[in-house]
Amino acid sequence: MTSTTSIASLAANSRAVLLIDCPDQKGLVARVSGLLYAQGANILHADQHQDHALGLFFMRVEWAIDSLSAEEGIPAFAEAFAPLATELKMRWQLRLMQRRPRVALFCSQYLHCIADLLYRASAGELSCEIAVIVSNHREVETLAAFHGIRFEYVPVTPATRAEAEAQQIALLSELDVELVVLARYMQILTENFVAQYPAAIINVHHSFLPAFIGARPYHAAHARGVKLIGATSHYVTSVLDDGPIIEQDVARISHRDQVEDLVARGRDLERIVLSRAVRWHLEQRILCYGNKTVVFD
Amino acid sequence: MTSTTSIASLAANSRAVLLIDCPDQKGLVARVSGLLYAQGANILHADQHQDHALGLFFMRVEWAIDSLSAEEGIPAFAEAFAPLATELKMRWQLRLMQRRPRVALFCSQYLHCIADLLYRASAGELSCEIAVIVSNHREVETLAAFHGIRFEYVPVTPATRAEAEAQQIALLSELDVELVVLARYMQILTENFVAQYPAAIINVHHSFLPAFIGARPYHAAHARGVKLIGATSHYVTSVLDDGPIIEQDVARISHRDQVEDLVARGRDLERIVLSRAVRWHLEQRILCYGNKTVVFD
Amino acid sequence: MTSTTSIASLAANSRAVLLIDCPDQKGLVARVSGLLYAQGANILHADQHQDHALGLFFMRVEWAIDSLSAEEGIPAFAEAFAPLATELKMRWQLRLMQRRPRVALFCSQYLHCIADLLYRASAGELSCEIAVIVSNHREVETLAAFHGIRFEYVPVTPATRAEAEAQQIALLSELDVELVVLARYMQILTENFVAQYPAAIINVHHSFLPAFIGARPYHAAHARGVKLIGATSHYVTSVLDDGPIIEQDVARISHRDQVEDLVARGRDLERIVLSRAVRWHLEQRILCYGNKTVVFD
Amino acid sequence: MTSTTSIASLAANSRAVLLIDCPDQKGLVARVSGLLYAQGANILHADQHQDHALGLFFMRVEWAIDSLSAEEGIPAFAEAFAPLATELKMRWQLRLMQRRPRVALFCSQYLHCIADLLYRASAGELSCEIAVIVSNHREVETLAAFHGIRFEYVPVTPATRAEAEAQQIALLSELDVELVVLARYMQILTENFVAQYPAAIINVHHSFLPAFIGARPYHAAHARGVKLIGATSHYVTSVLDDGPIIEQDVARISHRDQVEDLVARGRDLERIVLSRAVRWHLEQRILCYGNKTVVFD
Repeated sequence: MTSTTSIASLAANSRAVLLIDCPDQKGLVARVSGLLYAQGANILHADQHQDHALGLFFMRVEWAIDSLSAEEGIPAFAEAFAPLATELKMRWQLRLMQRRPRVALFCSQYLHCIADLLYRASAGELSCEIAVIVSNHREVETLAAFHGIRFEYVPVTPATRAEAEAQQIALLSELDVELVVLARYMQILTENFVAQYPAAIINVHHSFLPAFIGARPYHAAHARGVKLIGATSHYVTSVLDDGPIIEQDVARISHRDQVEDLVARGRDLERIVLSRAVRWHLEQRILCYGNKTVVFD
Repeated sequence: MTSTTSIASLAANSRAVLLIDCPDQKGLVARVSGLLYAQGANILHADQHQDHALGLFFMRVEWAIDSLSAEEGIPAFAEAFAPLATELKMRWQLRLMQRRPRVALFCSQYLHCIADLLYRASAGELSCEIAVIVSNHREVETLAAFHGIRFEYVPVTPATRAEAEAQQIALLSELDVELVVLARYMQILTENFVAQYPAAIINVHHSFLPAFIGARPYHAAHARGVKLIGATSHYVTSVLDDGPIIEQDVARISHRDQVEDLVARGRDLERIVLSRAVRWHLEQRILCYGNKTVVFD
Repeated sequence: MTSTTSIASLAANSRAVLLIDCPDQKGLVARVSGLLYAQGANILHADQHQDHALGLFFMRVEWAIDSLSAEEGIPAFAEAFAPLATELKMRWQLRLMQRRPRVALFCSQYLHCIADLLYRASAGELSCEIAVIVSNHREVETLAAFHGIRFEYVPVTPATRAEAEAQQIALLSELDVELVVLARYMQILTENFVAQYPAAIINVHHSFLPAFIGARPYHAAHARGVKLIGATSHYVTSVLDDGPIIEQDVARISHRDQVEDLVARGRDLERIVLSRAVRWHLEQRILCYGNKTVVFD
Repeated sequence: MTSTTSIASLAANSRAVLLIDCPDQKGLVARVSGLLYAQGANILHADQHQDHALGLFFMRVEWAIDSLSAEEGIPAFAEAFAPLATELKMRWQLRLMQRRPRVALFCSQYLHCIADLLYRASAGELSCEIAVIVSNHREVETLAAFHGIRFEYVPVTPATRAEAEAQQIALLSELDVELVVLARYMQILTENFVAQYPAAIINVHHSFLPAFIGARPYHAAHARGVKLIGATSHYVTSVLDDGPIIEQDVARISHRDQVEDLVARGRDLERIVLSRAVRWHLEQRILCYGNKTVVFD
């Protein structure tokens, strides 16, 4: 939208990112960076992390690619990298940044998070294609239409949950969705759904986890008399509000704030932590391990 | 220590503070402020709060007193105020700010909080008399000596807890202690001890309560993979880490931080939230109700 | 939009707010609250502030009004209050909260702030009528149409500034606009325009004022190597970026952040500080004095 | 002091850190990490940064050294590294972390910052030897004695500045001081003094630079009506309050806060930003370039 954003977008188009995690051992940085050097890669950013207690090594490398040859360059690099990755027992993800992942947004009747994500996507802050908006309510329909995004109304009741999820999963599959964002979607996904998208479903919970797990956290925060409220974005696992935390933030409150004030203050926190998590995921900055995340910034 | 501090201290010496809580009804502000006006009080600060859900009213008023007549002025005002307080079912506390409350500091082997409090007291940031330092360890002894404060070594084991607490309570009583500050005191006080000092024992817990109640909260925070760590100061009740919260603060951490980094970052948070709680208590800014606090700032 | 918001909105509809500033003297709280009590007002919130150095007194009182008689109640209260106000040399503003002020939003080609304000208004977070959107660019036109708000395109060049402002002022006058919000409007208003709306034009500046006054503050911040960036909302006066500050916030940056990262991080700050300022203004929480603000929270 | 700190200290004793900056070119990471691998180094942390606009490359590498052979290992590594450094036009610093730099603390009559640094040093939070405390006042003398640190009283007047500085420089030289910390030292050092310690004098300024440069920044902040106050730690250059910024932090204030409240709130900010800067410097985390810093965290 702005000239600055355009420049950043252009630049992003001709970049590749490699994410690695593997057992730690001497020489990993030397061997990965040596291979990149041999391939003529111009490294723009490189970041590593070791978890000494678990003996794990994590790395993110971002390099410039001549945009004319980018489509061919990625498979060529992958071919050259594969033997090293096998030898060093690496899990790895390689992505050409100009390929924009396809995303599904789920919401219910509260629209502040999804409206924020839609604005950011339209303004170039999020590098993705929003393939569909799914909701068990109809409030979001007008907003979807304004942004020209397909809307699917999928009502959910305890009795129809299995059927509704089957419909959702078929839709996501049909649309080649790689990331599901729960933007205040007030239904709990089944283990079956979650298993289809490991480390690819991002949720926002309106508390500073692990405090106030479950329903009505602002009411619980008010009852406990805390002096700060928080919000948390995390990957969804089969345990409620327990997945790897991506981002958290807090805001100061006082005795003057009633529950409805916490709800209002919290909306800004929710927007911020959810949009950061989605952006970092799309920029290939996040690695999950155990129940935690490494976020390369 | 500084001219600014000196001026503030002087000013504090000739002030009175009235703290009130009572059932809410129309006209409370008018009647209290009307009485103060009739008494010739020059109000410096006034703050009110209503809890509409519970139907409660809270008020803090601070006014200037001619320091020559302050000693007589307080009883005279109390006499004038008592009938109104009775009529309106008020609980109230009245204090001449030049009277400095007597405080006992408890600690164990970690000294960062108590060293901070001692420095602040010596620099005039805390308006109190530190009557005694009590510890189940001897690490603090040198520091106590440097500040010229009485030190009492009271070892505690499960077998001797009752006896140790009896010794502590006798000491506090003998020294007319009004406030007990647990500056990382790693022993749990019994219900009997707590009952002696209602809303007059301040503890610091090294987590963002109610997350990570109990022992080793930094280890728990690291295991959960949170992105912010916190600290909480609160009044002690008979339920562990459950008393009314006075202040909380947080700091951002990342995947690079190990448990010992959280411990180090957390020390600064603990100092800040504990010293604020103690200062606000000494300045008569805190009212407890239910399991919450009103902090007039 | 949500049940919580609806309840808050209903409640706001039957409230009155009185804002006062006057020379300080004994008994002000008593006399104002006494009058309110005599009028049968049920005070919901009351807050006072004294500037001892300048000898000024500030007060905000909010009380419940029976919504059936609210329209008559306000003039009746005003009549009763006027003699006291005259005697005590008060400046005062009285408003029935169900009357929603009419607002004009100005923007240029960057839409993040105006999109945020429009969303908040539509979601019930801002109690106002948005009468018109004015821009020297056409980027906002689609957004205005989506929200069903009149859009006026008023191009501005140095040569046509006087004429453009005359057109803007006529428009604002015709539409009974009480508040002008500059949501990243990249034109400097003349002294003549500013004089028409004293303490009624709110601007957002993308720096932590008074650092980095003027154009391209993110570039200046990057060049200076600061570790935090900020944003500031303030009332507009005839001196550039110098009016009374309403709200400020900051975000941490690092050496990894380039100017375009500061711009992106800053957008969130700008949204937050501008929307808070507008909300506080609409809730009658702000008093200007000298070149500063009192914000009753 | 704590078991955690002891473990961290032990670990620090057997580590080496290499800091590099040089013109950017392809293959730098590969060549440096390749050399380290060839030398058998076990890399614990590695971090790089490129300034693309200026074409500069920065790197920090930390690796484990067998503590028995550490004294010989460092010169051996330096010898192996020198040819590469010359070829790639590197500036580099290599340090065995068990060697604790010698530090001089300067202060005037305000003791909050120096008291904080002394406590942190005694508690093991700062890995250094405090060689001397220098002051133009005598307030700090008791504190110095308590910590067993040499105290030098060096009064300064405009007439005696040159002589006083000559005495200070001789003292620092005699004591092999490598870092000078100005812990609220209220004298301006001459260009001559500053030139002796490039990027080795750390100051704390009690504002959010570049706002409120010079004397009495809290008064200036109060007069401007800002809503946040700040503090800044930076390296000292010959231009007042203009050197490379190391760390900044802010705290929220309100209209209720008078200048003396800003002073009190600011003390905590000053302690935090100064102690962080000193710790990061001692841990070899800071590289200066132009008028900015890279801080590897």
